[in-house]
Amino acid sequence: MWTKLKYWLIGPPLPTRDLGEKRLGKFHALAAFSPDALSSIAYANQEIYLALAVAGSAGLILTFPIGVAIALLLGLVALSYRQTIYAYPSGGGSYAVSRENLGVLPGLVAAAALLVGYLLTAAVSLTAAVEAIASAFPVLWSQRVGVALLFLVIITLANLRGLRESGMLMAVPVYLFVASYLAMLLYGLVRLILEGPGSLNAPAPVVPLTLALALRAFASGCTALTGIEAISNGVPVFRPPESRNAGKTLLVMALLMGLLFVGSVGLTQGFGVTAGAEETILSALARRIVGSEVAYLIIQAATMLILAVAANTSFAGFPRLAAILAQEGFLPRQLRSLGERLVFANAILLLAVATGVLIVLFGGDTHALIPLFAVGVFLAFTLSQAGMVVHWRRERGPGWWWKAALNGIGAVATGVTVLIVGVSKFAAGAWITVVLIPLLVLLFRKIRGHYDQVAQQLSFQTPASCTCQSAAPRVVIPIAGVHRGIFDAMAYSCAISQNVTAVYVELEPGAGQKIRAQWKRWWPDVPLVVIPSPYRTIVRPLLDYLDRVDGEADDGQLATVVLPEFVPAKWWQGLLHGQTAWLIRAALLYRRRHLGFQRTIIDVPYHLER
Amino acid sequence: MWTKLKYWLIGPPLPTRDLGEKRLGKFHALAAFSPDALSSIAYANQEIYLALAVAGSAGLILTFPIGVAIALLLGLVALSYRQTIYAYPSGGGSYAVSRENLGVLPGLVAAAALLVGYLLTAAVSLTAAVEAIASAFPVLWSQRVGVALLFLVIITLANLRGLRESGMLMAVPVYLFVASYLAMLLYGLVRLILEGPGSLNAPAPVVPLTLALALRAFASGCTALTGIEAISNGVPVFRPPESRNAGKTLLVMALLMGLLFVGSVGLTQGFGVTAGAEETILSALARRIVGSEVAYLIIQAATMLILAVAANTSFAGFPRLAAILAQEGFLPRQLRSLGERLVFANAILLLAVATGVLIVLFGGDTHALIPLFAVGVFLAFTLSQAGMVVHWRRERGPGWWWKAALNGIGAVATGVTVLIVGVSKFAAGAWITVVLIPLLVLLFRKIRGHYDQVAQQLSFQTPASCTCQSAAPRVVIPIAGVHRGIFDAMAYSCAISQNVTAVYVELEPGAGQKIRAQWKRWWPDVPLVVIPSPYRTIVRPLLDYLDRVDGEADDGQLATVVLPEFVPAKWWQGLLHGQTAWLIRAALLYRRRHLGFQRTIIDVPYHLER
Repeated sequence: MWTKLKYWLIGPPLPTRDLGEKRLGKFHALAAFSPDALSSIAYANQEIYLALAVAGSAGLILTFPIGVAIALLLGLVALSYRQTIYAYPSGGGSYAVSRENLGVLPGLVAAAALLVGYLLTAAVSLTAAVEAIASAFPVLWSQRVGVALLFLVIITLANLRGLRESGMLMAVPVYLFVASYLAMLLYGLVRLILEGPGSLNAPAPVVPLTLALALRAFASGCTALTGIEAISNGVPVFRPPESRNAGKTLLVMALLMGLLFVGSVGLTQGFGVTAGAEETILSALARRIVGSEVAYLIIQAATMLILAVAANTSFAGFPRLAAILAQEGFLPRQLRSLGERLVFANAILLLAVATGVLIVLFGGDTHALIPLFAVGVFLAFTLSQAGMVVHWRRERGPGWWWKAALNGIGAVATGVTVLIVGVSKFAAGAWITVVLIPLLVLLFRKIRGHYDQVAQQLSFQTPASCTCQSAAPRVVIPIAGVHRGIFDAMAYSCAISQNVTAVYVELEPGAGQKIRAQWKRWWPDVPLVVIPSPYRTIVRPLLDYLDRVDGEADDGQLATVVLPEFVPAKWWQGLLHGQTAWLIRAALLYRRRHLGFQRTIIDVPYHLER
Repeated sequence: MWTKLKYWLIGPPLPTRDLGEKRLGKFHALAAFSPDALSSIAYANQEIYLALAVAGSAGLILTFPIGVAIALLLGLVALSYRQTIYAYPSGGGSYAVSRENLGVLPGLVAAAALLVGYLLTAAVSLTAAVEAIASAFPVLWSQRVGVALLFLVIITLANLRGLRESGMLMAVPVYLFVASYLAMLLYGLVRLILEGPGSLNAPAPVVPLTLALALRAFASGCTALTGIEAISNGVPVFRPPESRNAGKTLLVMALLMGLLFVGSVGLTQGFGVTAGAEETILSALARRIVGSEVAYLIIQAATMLILAVAANTSFAGFPRLAAILAQEGFLPRQLRSLGERLVFANAILLLAVATGVLIVLFGGDTHALIPLFAVGVFLAFTLSQAGMVVHWRRERGPGWWWKAALNGIGAVATGVTVLIVGVSKFAAGAWITVVLIPLLVLLFRKIRGHYDQVAQQLSFQTPASCTCQSAAPRVVIPIAGVHRGIFDAMAYSCAISQNVTAVYVELEPGAGQKIRAQWKRWWPDVPLVVIPSPYRTIVRPLLDYLDRVDGEADDGQLATVVLPEFVPAKWWQGLLHGQTAWLIRAALLYRRRHLGFQRTIIDVPYHLER
């Protein structure tokens, strides 16, 4: 029944030979890699607006200049990554580039930053998607957590099925978003020129405009750049010539990002748009330009869809990176295994749970999540660019100096941004990321250390301290009575060993006498030991007995315990029998785990037919 | 740590030799057996009042006559039970008497009625105790569920410790209650005579006074009789001459019950006392007689304490009856086992959970629980008295006819009461008991049927269909790689069998080749089978392989599976290893349980040292 439900939800297993990615043309590749990058304007705008609005109209006047500064940073980062694409045609994620050029530790820092970034992309995109649609339908505003979790469940199931991110399913929301926004911005620009700028009906200033405030607004707006590195990870997916096509696609994407971002920021300031408490600034802008009719609804729907698709890209990127780290022993091995549907199901579930926890903890509020976001993303940018500088220096190809300089400028610019974001947003939540990333790096190293130790202990080169028993084992078989249920277990014990002892724990004084008499009739040659149990527990006296006989034996091995196990015909019948075999097994396993008693356990079942 | 907490809460284990009950004198015996019976006036009065108050003053006038009718029934039942005490000096619970004289089915009906009665005594006494104290401190009224559950936890822990019901701890609340109530009633009677009857300030009638209403009030008041049978269960605890002492104690108890009941009912009507929404009628009566000062608080505290002690008596009676039923195979065997503290811990926990559920479901409201109560109690009375009639007829001792007649009248009176209660309270909740008792009887029989079948299957007389393997087993050992971790398992397998096969499930195409080469170096004589797994699961191909080789083998037995199990040094390390051995074990056990594959499993541990 569980299997049926599972098949219905995520489909039947797929054979390994179905693995292998389809190559993508530029049109589909743009749709596959850009949702995160393009959609980030949705929350970046909002953040700049919220950061400046507290300083009233004096603050909001800075909207456009800050937007332009971020767009310049965007151009710089895009050019830097274009060089990575040419240098690493096999895929140059921040982890790979940092690790190869800077060393293991910077690589792990980049990996931690990326994992945190993926997690926050998923959480922020989902909450922003809900806020986009809740701006149009305010009744949803108070239900943001629930709706975001619903989206999360749908995306998780789709990814467990093995949704391919290259499908038309992705292309529709992306191009719908680009087309509707470009049309809106163009129409808005025409109206702005015809009608002249609107008067700003700004909220009253709460704090004065300071440099710190402006920097905070800049730091908030930098979330617009998140996702720009996606193409550099996925170069091998492009049709040949891969690097050329990927580079072109990156430039088109960066151009679109810049256009949408600067355009929307500019029009917001031009029209003097402000937003209410339960509406995003982009929703307010769209209402201002096209009214609250069908066009507005299309724009909001497109925003919601591209944000949902952006969250989805985390579900592709996070598991892939986790699998690479697991392969190298820095994360649990289970994250490496391809599930029945050829996806990294464990990592998908891990990301889904973590995202759900974040959404609930932060009440589905994008604005509360954003301060955690940019630190990780820009740290990965910085490490990746710094790695590229080292790469060019090592290669010393033609014109290496210029290339290194461009990546160096990128590294410095993004590095400065990390500092600005980290400091200006520290108390608001960036501290969480600042603490989390080193902890993750420590965790990676701890895990790798364990795997290294295990590998050493498992290798045959290590001198063996084990007791390689070639002699037949001594067998102890605890019995609860003399009946058919122990018949198979006795036969088995006698078949594998000449040294078999049965043990009866006597709960009621005198019961042992009766058992001994019955025993003699059936197995006169097998010794039966009766242990009194003054406290009426079975496990403790049995363990004491085992310790005693192991101490007395001179073969240096621990006795094997044979457990005659009662297998009832129906599950409820199990409730009617004391789970003694189960208790003994649990106690033996506990001692194995915690005290190092390496005792072998044999389960011999006796099946009840009715 | 868990052990320490357990010891602190319920104490260290007690040896079996500590078992054995102290004999009780009449003074302590009355305190031990009467709390349930005496305290039931607390809720019986309240129920009569609530039943009649809906008909206004016309209804409340019937309070005293109904009280007298119930007192007459009480006298009759007490005399009936006195005869049981003499006939069954070894303890004549309703179950034992019904079963011996009427047969197994009536015995089981009585047992089911008794178990339900114990459960409801616990729940009703606790809620009534809370209502008694909440009448004095109204702030507790809205917290009744929480306070009742707190009482329940305390009583449960005390019983798990092994509280002896004979201690002074019991005598204090009982005699405090009797003394304070008798004093209050006497003082009230004097005041009533001196001051004359009070005017009744009754609530306006909601329904007219009908015979049905009067019967309903009578049915509600019959809960006053609950607990009267307790002494007949415990005759052997009395000092010799047991029956004589027990009989006298019963009469004293019945007299006290009658006095307290009729006295309080009479004074309530005499003073024309009515109760508010958040007060019991007995609290209102006490306030009317002694004012709201210290005397009143003592009376309410005594009421609360005796009710708590009454709940406690269920925790002695229920486990004792459950153990008898378990001993005879009508309930799961686990209810029979004396725990570390020499109490039936499983039954105590079962009762505690069921009581807690009842309290929560009924919102801690005594009035809502009462309709479920009397049916079970009076059904047990009826069966017990009917059984006594048969008993006397069989014995035909001197004057048997008169004794049979008295018990017969008792049986008819209580039987009629069952009908009155069942019908008049059916919709209000009695239907739950009416449905529950037959279901319990069915359950008893089903459980007994299973144990009978098991005993038959386990007996050596049944011709064996088992494959009593005396030949050495065929061994299959699944391996995840060639390393030190499988060394012990291989040595063990070779020690117990000449027929060992290793199996490697190949998740990545080509991996098998490498494993095979390594294998040849270490175990050239042991065959290694490589099974491809196109869907990357380990369990399914392994099970298919086992089925195949079992089918091909001609020895008619199933192969033994040896699982090399990785025992990490620290618990968290377990998270870093795919639980493959665990998954295989789970799949094998599932097949054992549900498909009847009786395969032996051997766990050979490999202990990691770091």
